[in-house]
This record gives sequence, C-alpha cells and structure tokens, in this order.
Amino acid sequence: MLVRFAGLGLGAATLTTVAAASGNSNVDVLTSSPDVSSFMAEPVTPLSTLVKDKDDMKVKMEMLIMKIQADFCRALENEEDPSKKFIVDRWTRAEGGGGVTCVIQNGKTFEKAGVNVSVVHGILPVDAVRQMKARGKELIGKELPFFAAGISSVIHPSNPHVPTVHFNYRYFEVTQENGEKMWWFGGGTDLTPYYLVEEDVRHFHSTLKNACDQHDVGYYPKFKKWCDEYFLVSHRNECRGVGGIFFDDFEMHSQEDCFKFVKSCAESVIPSYVPLVKKHRNDPYTSAERDWQLLRRGRYVEFNLVYDRGTKFGLYTPGARIESILMSLPVYAKWEYMHSPSDGTPEAKLTEILKNPKEWI
Amino acid sequence: MLVRFAGLGLGAATLTTVAAASGNSNVDVLTSSPDVSSFMAEPVTPLSTLVKDKDDMKVKMEMLIMKIQADFCRALENEEDPSKKFIVDRWTRAEGGGGVTCVIQNGKTFEKAGVNVSVVHGILPVDAVRQMKARGKELIGKELPFFAAGISSVIHPSNPHVPTVHFNYRYFEVTQENGEKMWWFGGGTDLTPYYLVEEDVRHFHSTLKNACDQHDVGYYPKFKKWCDEYFLVSHRNECRGVGGIFFDDFEMHSQEDCFKFVKSCAESVIPSYVPLVKKHRNDPYTSAERDWQLLRRGRYVEFNLVYDRGTKFGLYTPGARIESILMSLPVYAKWEYMHSPSDGTPEAKLTEILKNPKEWI
Repeated sequence: MLVRFAGLGLGAATLTTVAAASGNSNVDVLTSSPDVSSFMAEPVTPLSTLVKDKDDMKVKMEMLIMKIQADFCRALENEEDPSKKFIVDRWTRAEGGGGVTCVIQNGKTFEKAGVNVSVVHGILPVDAVRQMKARGKELIGKELPFFAAGISSVIHPSNPHVPTVHFNYRYFEVTQENGEKMWWFGGGTDLTPYYLVEEDVRHFHSTLKNACDQHDVGYYPKFKKWCDEYFLVSHRNECRGVGGIFFDDFEMHSQEDCFKFVKSCAESVIPSYVPLVKKHRNDPYTSAERDWQLLRRGRYVEFNLVYDRGTKFGLYTPGARIESILMSLPVYAKWEYMHSPSDGTPEAKLTEILKNPKEWI
Repeated sequence: MLVRFAGLGLGAATLTTVAAASGNSNVDVLTSSPDVSSFMAEPVTPLSTLVKDKDDMKVKMEMLIMKIQADFCRALENEEDPSKKFIVDRWTRAEGGGGVTCVIQNGKTFEKAGVNVSVVHGILPVDAVRQMKARGKELIGKELPFFAAGISSVIHPSNPHVPTVHFNYRYFEVTQENGEKMWWFGGGTDLTPYYLVEEDVRHFHSTLKNACDQHDVGYYPKFKKWCDEYFLVSHRNECRGVGGIFFDDFEMHSQEDCFKFVKSCAESVIPSYVPLVKKHRNDPYTSAERDWQLLRRGRYVEFNLVYDRGTKFGLYTPGARIESILMSLPVYAKWEYMHSPSDGTPEAKLTEILKNPKEWI
C-alpha cells in the first residue's frame, strides 16, 4: 500500500484522518504524542502502540528516526527552490512493517535527495541477517524473527562544489532459534566531495567528533577509521569519499546509552552538512566540473551496488521496497574507459586523498 | 604493462617488432601463423607457444577469440564515423597472462563499444573459481591452479533505436587438489533493446538458433531459457533484455565438439547484431527517447554490478584489470525514483516483455 503526501508535511488534522482511516480512531492518543504532528507522515507503527510501548527501544528508535527525517527534510527544503518540496511516500510491507520515503528529484539545489525511514519485522533467512551484521556472535538458526528500524539518506546536490552526504542509523533485534534475543545499533555519516575544500572537511569531521566525544572520546578515532575501511571501493583501491564515522554491532553498553549515542550522531547530521550546502550551492561551475561530478557518481554507484551491506540487505529482503533502497543512486552517473585526471588538477588532488585517507582533526 | 595501439590494426611488420621486443625473435613463427596479422594486437601467449601447442585447447581458444575480436571490431568500425577507430590496449597481468581491450567511446554510432579478450592463468581462491561456474561438480581444494581464456563484449549504441548487445565466450581449466583436471566452456549472446521491434528480435534469435541447430536442435530452447533466467534483475523481477542464448559448465561432449559449438555461437554474433545497427543507427529520435535509454542503462548497471557472475569473478580476481571488466558499463546511466512508463506507450510495451519473456521463433 502506498499513500503519497505530495510535498506536504503532515498536520494534525491530516494525521487524524489517516489514523481514522486505518482504524486507529483514538484521537486522545494523538494529543498525547505532540511530536508526531511534525513528522513527514504518520509513523509506521500504530499510534496506540507508540504510546503504550513508549519505553520499548523499538518505539524509541522509530520516534527518533521519524523526527530526524522531518528535521533534515525541512532543513534541506530551506536550501531549495521554494516551489520544490519533498514528495512523501508512506508504504507498507506485506511481510510486516513499512516505511516513509521522502524524495526531491531534479531540484535547483538537489539533483536527488532521498531520506528514508523503514520499520520492518518478520522472519529472515540467516544470510540476510548476516548482511546487516559486520561481525560478532554467530547467529543460531536458519530463519530468524527480526525487527529493524532505520533511517537512511543520500543527498546528491546539483552543484559539483556541494558534496554528497550519506547517513544511516539503525536498530536491530533478532531472536535466535534457542530463544536468545540479540540487539544492536549501527550507523554512520560520511561525506563525498567532488572537489576538496579542506576547511569544509574539517568542519564536517569536527561536528561528528563533538557528537562522539559527548559519549566517549575513544569513539571518534575508532569509528573514523572504521568508516575509511568500510567505504572502500576495493576493486579501485580508493575510498568513496573523505569519510566520517561508521559503526556496527554497537551493543557494548546499556541499550539506553547506545541509543543516546546514536541520537547524538543523528542530530549532528544537519550541523555537519547543511552549512556546506549553504556555502556552495550557488558557486559557479563549468561543464568539465559537472562531468567530473558524474564520473565520481559512477564510483558511488559501484560502491553501493557491489559492496554496501545495507543495499545488499535490502535487495535480499523479501518484500523490500526497491525504490526506497535504490533511491541512494544519483539521477545521472557516468563511466569513461581509462579516465584519469591530469596531474596537478583539483580532480587529481581529490583522487590522491581518496587513495590515502588522512586525519582531518 | 600496457601497450596501446591507438586505433590501428596490427600489421605484420608491427607484430614482428613487438615479438622481437618481447624476446620472441623467430620470424618464421610469424609466417606460419597467417591469421595473427589481422588481430587487433599480438596475442597474449608467445607466438612460439601458439605454434608449438596449436592443438592444445588453450591455444585453439585464444586463436578463436582473437579472431572473433578482430572481425567484430572491424564490422563495428564499418558502421562508425571513419575517423573513429577502436583504441587497442594490450595489457599483461603480473600474476599470469594478460589481454587485449578494444574500446570506442563517444562515437557517432557507438556511445561505448568494448570488446575484450583475456587469457589469464595462475592460482585462484576456490570462491573466485565458483563465481565462474554455475553448478556441477564440487571443487576440491582451497586454492586452485586455473586457466581462463575468454572474449567479452558490450556495445552501447548512441541511438536509442539500436539495441545494446552483449556476448561472452570462455574456456576454463582448473586443476583440483587431488590432481584431477576439469575443463568447461561457457558463454552466450543477448540483446537489450530500448524499443521493441519484434521483427528485429526474431532476426536476432533466429540467427542464434541456426548456429545452435548445426550442433544439436535441443540447444537453442535449452540455452534460450537459461538466458532468460540468468539475465534477470531479480530485485525488479524483470529481464535485462529480450534474451538470446546462455550456457555454462558446457562439457557434455568431447572438447573438440564443445569448441566447435562455441565457435559457431561466436561467429553468429556479427550476423545476428550488425544488421540491426545498420538498420537503425540513423533513425530520428527525441530527447524523451534518449532519456528512456538512459533509464534502461541504469537497469543494465544494476544487473552487471549486483548479479553478473563474470563481473564478480573479475572484481574478486587478484590483479584483474578493472577498466577492462567495467568497460561493460555505459557512458551515461540514469536513475529516477518511481519511474514508470505510461500505459500504452512503446516504453510500457518493452517493460511488459521484460517482465514476461516470450518465445520469438
């Protein structure tokens, strides 16, 4: 089922209508959840459950990612032509759960901006679950009941001087055959510039570092390194971009502590990225610079389709919504046989950094 | 090592020079191998070995694919602007073997045309070998000595009314830990039109069927079905194109019989495809038709990077030449969130066929 809210946020009145239509006619529930009215669409889980189980991590994560989605979409719309708003598709998955996908396409500032929330549950082949887990305990069983709630976003700006950003924060629960329940968080934020402005990269990394440092000063160096290692286009031996932070199997503390850390990371996306959009979205650029942007987007596609665990998890999950998974791909990408930037050019300078990731702060 | 023969075929004189430079100064060898002079570049294996072991299947396959490459490149150049010729890169692989990659890029008729021969050998992790083998006997051992000779080609024309074609024919030898040597052939030819012209698809399939029927009337139906099943973009539940033939693990007869069949298939590429280029390369087209072509090329990229066994084998092979493997990707590709052609349009007609492959003859 697909309900499209064309470019509109979801006011309380609309929400009541949707809630009533889907059988949740308890308007009291709504008034006790004030934050919900600012979301891009009605959450996936019925409002009554969200209120009743408000201390359950599944609910806390869903509420967090719905809010992050709305805040980020509004912040991006502020940088876009006022006539261009996110289209909002709320979808359900026959096998359990659903999501809210927000997309701007062919905007003035954003060639493609996708911000996707999904809250899904059901039974998964163990191989599919493995795609979501970097390492750690072996999973016991062939088919496992699971729950996954996550936000995932890729922003491909029109102007080659504005970097692409990606972030993804997710919470996972799996019940093994022996009844043991496992949970973990994962996520990260990373930047892919087409032209290197060191000051911008330092701003980006500093903002993420500040978010990490509030919780543990060991996190940023560890997760910065993990990011460089994860977003590697191995067959070209170059990083996808200038990194950021990345972590998986995050379960070393109490659930609540983990959640707070993930919340800080997710809340640092806007201050880390939006200033770079504001700064460069009106920069002049040449057709050669546009061309370089498209070639780099080809590499982005290579990483996402060949290596990215999130994409693979999506493609292998029965009933997954393909359009939401592949919304991460750019509008245009380009491949040229044996393309290599000339020595001493800004394009060569970027390539050099991608082959040799460095410390930014 | 890379030697580029910029757009030139390799005359006998040049070949002598190259042979002398690489230490094979026996000019008599050259005169006893008359076909070699028409190749796009010097074969990978030293000429002396090609003459000495001329009855070895490794040599027979290398000679066949070098000839097919040259014939196909010449046939395509006939359809191209006379000023635009294939660039020819002859490369060697540190771990053993090498290849000859021929590419036209941004031509008038061909946006990208790649025809690659590779003849490689060495030691492979068993997982990499598995990528090349569809099914059949289990492989014994962790790291296996292997030999692979193949030709692989993808042609992306500029005009959306000219279909894309792909073909690949390969011969494989693996020696298992217990000393047992296995060999098999694989390959196929398939067509990916942007607009459906049934008469053209029938011509294409008939030509392949004729090639198959010379060897066994059971081959075409079997390999046509295999092709439809293999070139499936599973996550979209649609075929990449209108199919053709595909087979793997081909070893049911004598090596010589298998080779003859593969030779017939490879020789049917030109008559199956080039007439379609000739027929449509000057067709008028609109920017909307160009746009549709780019969207379909996005699906082509999805198949090649997510599913194609040949691409995966390449990406996982140590020392593989990435530019030759990814030469199959188009110059431009496009992704649009939730794109769907309107009912009753030629674009919808093609989509319908891709979702429901049919018998063409």
